[in-house]
Amino acid sequence: MIRVAINGYGTIGKRVADAVREQPDMEVVGVAKTSPNFEAVRAVEKGYDLYAAIEDRAGKFADADIETAGLVDELVAQSDVVVDATPSGIGAENKAMYDEYETPALYQGGESADVADVSFNARSNYDKARGADHVRVVSCNTTGLSRLLAPLDEEYGVEKARVTLVRRGGDPSQTGRGPINDILPNPITLPSHHGPDVKTIFPEIDIDTLGLKVPATLMHMHSVNVTLETAPDADEVLDLLEGESRIFCIPPEFDIDGTGQLKEYAKDLGRPRGDIWENALWSESITMEGNDFYCFQAIHQESDVVSENVDAIRAVTGSADAEESVQTTNDALGI
Amino acid sequence: MIRVAINGYGTIGKRVADAVREQPDMEVVGVAKTSPNFEAVRAVEKGYDLYAAIEDRAGKFADADIETAGLVDELVAQSDVVVDATPSGIGAENKAMYDEYETPALYQGGESADVADVSFNARSNYDKARGADHVRVVSCNTTGLSRLLAPLDEEYGVEKARVTLVRRGGDPSQTGRGPINDILPNPITLPSHHGPDVKTIFPEIDIDTLGLKVPATLMHMHSVNVTLETAPDADEVLDLLEGESRIFCIPPEFDIDGTGQLKEYAKDLGRPRGDIWENALWSESITMEGNDFYCFQAIHQESDVVSENVDAIRAVTGSADAEESVQTTNDALGI
Repeated sequence: MIRVAINGYGTIGKRVADAVREQPDMEVVGVAKTSPNFEAVRAVEKGYDLYAAIEDRAGKFADADIETAGLVDELVAQSDVVVDATPSGIGAENKAMYDEYETPALYQGGESADVADVSFNARSNYDKARGADHVRVVSCNTTGLSRLLAPLDEEYGVEKARVTLVRRGGDPSQTGRGPINDILPNPITLPSHHGPDVKTIFPEIDIDTLGLKVPATLMHMHSVNVTLETAPDADEVLDLLEGESRIFCIPPEFDIDGTGQLKEYAKDLGRPRGDIWENALWSESITMEGNDFYCFQAIHQESDVVSENVDAIRAVTGSADAEESVQTTNDALGI
Repeated sequence: MIRVAINGYGTIGKRVADAVREQPDMEVVGVAKTSPNFEAVRAVEKGYDLYAAIEDRAGKFADADIETAGLVDELVAQSDVVVDATPSGIGAENKAMYDEYETPALYQGGESADVADVSFNARSNYDKARGADHVRVVSCNTTGLSRLLAPLDEEYGVEKARVTLVRRGGDPSQTGRGPINDILPNPITLPSHHGPDVKTIFPEIDIDTLGLKVPATLMHMHSVNVTLETAPDADEVLDLLEGESRIFCIPPEFDIDGTGQLKEYAKDLGRPRGDIWENALWSESITMEGNDFYCFQAIHQESDVVSENVDAIRAVTGSADAEESVQTTNDALGI
């Protein structure tokens, strides 16, 4: 069993903990958190050993009557891998601690690429993370783009990608974020960080990205153009993408018009927290105009990297190859 | 003086009436409306002769104590041009009446292109509307795209345009429309109608468009890519676009982050109803990657076609050439 520590128990951390617990070859040693709140209460209720992330704040948990098992460095010391799911920038600060205990670490996409030896997407470059000490699982949007670009590039060759990312303003629980009733070019200048981030996975791919923010919380939306080196039929491309286990090609007969109905479908499926781990790509939107491929895909910002973190754990521990790992993860989660 | 009738006194009609009234060479003979409401009250208060649009509903205005000057056919009979600003599809039904009185008619972009002899954008094809009996002023989005494509095509040549239109769900006063907290591919299939509509103005331009709807009401947003036949510097393209009277290149120092601040700026300028007749294009977003031009521009759906309707009136009556008309319109409105 691979012994996994989760440092940071917020949106991503709690989901990764639950996903790791479902794996046949992994166990959660414990989870670490900085402050008591409902998520800390639920962590203990779910049977996770809870560690205080920063020593001088440890008193807060006792004050809140929440039992802790120790401090985060004790958790890291006894684990085979640590998944750092702390807020952007904190992962880099934690790196020295992971090195001190010689525990390989996974970081999230909010960290800059240079925090890690390799940026990771299971579909695209699993083998590069084998044996690495520091691996960054790329962000939700970069994960979604990588999953799409990998098969297109392998099958047809990508001449150039141009993507407009219409991003949700915040997650449903991020009550302080906007915009309200506005459409923001964000950033106003090009490229958005997504294009360069995709290049950490595909250094050779020519990609320009534009980012926007809108008053929605459920999922991101990508308006995708990829100029291919050949000109397949749209039906052929649909067949290709339907063969990808982490791309859900929405059947037209589902009559799903947007992210609200996608989330409703995920809840109807009984998915934990209504999560959508796959890219959700509208089959009907797949269009070829000459060599130009187009589609719309929605990305669930809270969960699409969860399966990637699980695979990255196997990659750094060298316990499975890409195909085995993805299959095991998918089977355990029900993807 | 060109005697102008306005049939339909809603979002577009009332703005066109006010804009026509400001012109030195035009007068508003009257405005026509189907039902009494606050806009009908304001029309009378502003001194417009109000005509009932459909005979069998005329009684409603008397019931509401709103004075009418007659029925719409009387208005059409005594006018040199009629601007049809009725809801989509009604313009086509009105066409026979305009023919009966031999009054040249302008239609709005909600009508299908075949209602008219020519689809019109002042910057792009003014002369085609000279002397025409039926002219369609293209929609707000097509107007915005045409204004941008015209100078790019003239100066550099357009190889291909790819545009994602992130559209407001409804106008601020359209309380029954959505979406709420969602991002909808709309339509899910490609192309959106905008690409084909641009081709009614530029038959030769290769353009693919994708449409989305989001929970915002203030303005549309375009994420624009145009592959040019040459590769100018971004600064050079900015210079070109700054020379266009109906493109407002937002200076970086204005620190305008989205459509809310744009509207606030328009209100600070004292613009009627806070209208923005120009494309609002972020200077900082203008980017060249090889031959690929990119930018963000916002389009005020309620007002950008107003100046185009005024110019189309001069075009069909043959009373000015394009340059004279645009200059006169701009001066009168304060563009």
